[in-house]
Amino acid sequence: MLNFGSIIICPQNEGVFGRIFMRTLQWDHQKNELVMIDQRLLPGEFKLVNCKNHAEVASAISEMVVRGAPAIGVAAAFGIALAAINSKTGDLEALKNELRDASRTLQSSRPTAVNLAWALKRLMEKYDTFSGSADNLRGFLIAEACRMAEEDVEINRRMAEHGARLIDDGDTIIHHCNTGALAAVDWGTALGVIRMAHEQGKNVHVLVDETRPRLQGARLTAWELQQYGIPYEIITDNMAGYFLRSGQVKKVFFGADRITANGDVANKIGTYMLSLAAFDNQVPAYTTAPISTIDLSLASGEQIPIEERSPSEVLDISYQGQQVTPTGAHARNPAFDVTPHRLITGIITEKGVIYPPYIQNLASTLQK
Amino acid sequence: MLNFGSIIICPQNEGVFGRIFMRTLQWDHQKNELVMIDQRLLPGEFKLVNCKNHAEVASAISEMVVRGAPAIGVAAAFGIALAAINSKTGDLEALKNELRDASRTLQSSRPTAVNLAWALKRLMEKYDTFSGSADNLRGFLIAEACRMAEEDVEINRRMAEHGARLIDDGDTIIHHCNTGALAAVDWGTALGVIRMAHEQGKNVHVLVDETRPRLQGARLTAWELQQYGIPYEIITDNMAGYFLRSGQVKKVFFGADRITANGDVANKIGTYMLSLAAFDNQVPAYTTAPISTIDLSLASGEQIPIEERSPSEVLDISYQGQQVTPTGAHARNPAFDVTPHRLITGIITEKGVIYPPYIQNLASTLQK
Repeated sequence: MLNFGSIIICPQNEGVFGRIFMRTLQWDHQKNELVMIDQRLLPGEFKLVNCKNHAEVASAISEMVVRGAPAIGVAAAFGIALAAINSKTGDLEALKNELRDASRTLQSSRPTAVNLAWALKRLMEKYDTFSGSADNLRGFLIAEACRMAEEDVEINRRMAEHGARLIDDGDTIIHHCNTGALAAVDWGTALGVIRMAHEQGKNVHVLVDETRPRLQGARLTAWELQQYGIPYEIITDNMAGYFLRSGQVKKVFFGADRITANGDVANKIGTYMLSLAAFDNQVPAYTTAPISTIDLSLASGEQIPIEERSPSEVLDISYQGQQVTPTGAHARNPAFDVTPHRLITGIITEKGVIYPPYIQNLASTLQK
Repeated sequence: MLNFGSIIICPQNEGVFGRIFMRTLQWDHQKNELVMIDQRLLPGEFKLVNCKNHAEVASAISEMVVRGAPAIGVAAAFGIALAAINSKTGDLEALKNELRDASRTLQSSRPTAVNLAWALKRLMEKYDTFSGSADNLRGFLIAEACRMAEEDVEINRRMAEHGARLIDDGDTIIHHCNTGALAAVDWGTALGVIRMAHEQGKNVHVLVDETRPRLQGARLTAWELQQYGIPYEIITDNMAGYFLRSGQVKKVFFGADRITANGDVANKIGTYMLSLAAFDNQVPAYTTAPISTIDLSLASGEQIPIEERSPSEVLDISYQGQQVTPTGAHARNPAFDVTPHRLITGIITEKGVIYPPYIQNLASTLQK
């Protein structure tokens, strides 16, 4: 049994008597290392990965040992703390330069989610103006990264409370990708909302988009829902329209990797088609994301850089024990798409639910 | 090397010097057996399955050894011929009763595609009024099933010619499921159209929907396109919207399992979401289907029975060598969805392309 953040989970390879307390990512104060759950191996294997320097953190982000917009933001913050610890310099300005280098490395690990840039920028503003000793800055950055992790949990809990009010007893909900505790330090975004509604005693039933190509829904969301005791069924992404048309789905929930000033939402590939099918059937579609996901510097979704990942993520699949694709097959693999704001019913944040017109309401919420 | 209908194909496990002439399904006149390519094993393995009686044909259809609306219609016709051959009776009326029993068994093998019912009904009308000896009826039914197979090839070739006029040189096309030679006796429906355009010298590029859960696109369509020398890339179904929004996709093509009087189209799961994304981006979406797919007895798509297959088809998937879903996971598996006629730009048939208003134009085309 594992205490996974605030919830108890049983990984499949863990005896029920082994008890570990673990979050998606956690700072080891003894070793000064960042410890992460290796999300590539779940649900089959529960394994922890220790990152000793910022380059290892950047690799863990790009290889998706850790994924989910809030989680990679906090991971990057710990990456900066590790860069500070590993620096040998006693000179404050030299240390700041090394941190700026580390920040560039971490920034380039994944391009689409803005939380990564947001976390690095927040830390940079702090160390740029820091005036103590180099060692003081090291200590400050560890504390600051830990504070960001705690803040993330608190922000996610508040989002979950705001969002849970939108869920009615008996709702069937389609959920895309993984946006749960594994996508953040704890709770998560959209799945945190569903979990909160469940903990409030509402009956919810989740249709889990498997979320090709990396299958975060079938792997991680299904696994989390099992731990929470929430009834669910996995569907392939292309089935969502069928269930929406049938009238049995009451809401659609997903997260966001970046939200532009007009309310356009970059999120895991498939979100656009899902939102379109929800809209076509008058089913509300909500994105759940912390304020740090909102990027007012971009006017609309067309300006968001979309990461294209390796074709092997599409091709390396077996079905009923057989390799699927023919030898020499080619593939494309954009990891995200942009859902135009006209398809988004509301944006659930830690400051409440933001409704259209987004161009006004996003800006005014950020000024609060 | 294999001659697959009229095209030369190289299955991956076949030496280039072994030369076989084979269609998706073919009657063995020496043995009086139906020979099919086992489509569950492609592209990894090329294996033929011999059906000796109608029960084996029904199993082959329900287990998807053979699939594709036109192919299962012709397979069912051969199933009736096999039922006739295997009957021991010398009495014409007793034989007809056995054929009606066999027809019910074959009919129940898959519920959604109407071609199956159409083929069985066409044969039943012939044997119901047959007045020769029982042996004469046996010979007649073999000949009739062979005639239906030849007709299928000719119908598909005509559809391909009508449809190819819609394709422009340089088009990028999204294609869903497998609708090629493997889905019919030869040529196929939507993929036959693309192949014809290619043979006419037009440059076409295909984005192949992998088509979860059974991955007919990634397995069969990719394999066929390799044989034809048509450039393609596999995408996951949920990526279609991304590419449609990017403006690079000029047309969307798919087949149909049943088309109702108002033009609603039942087809492989995912067709509805794909058509919706095409419509949202003003990209034309065409279905290609023989006239036998049109079921004027149903007013609209809501009346079409939708087959729900085993959850194992969704759950039994491995990704990068690992089992994906957690132990005890649940899944849903509707095999088809209905695309409302408002999203269908045109219906390509052997009698030409039918455009809206479908309620008038389908009926008048069928009366021609």
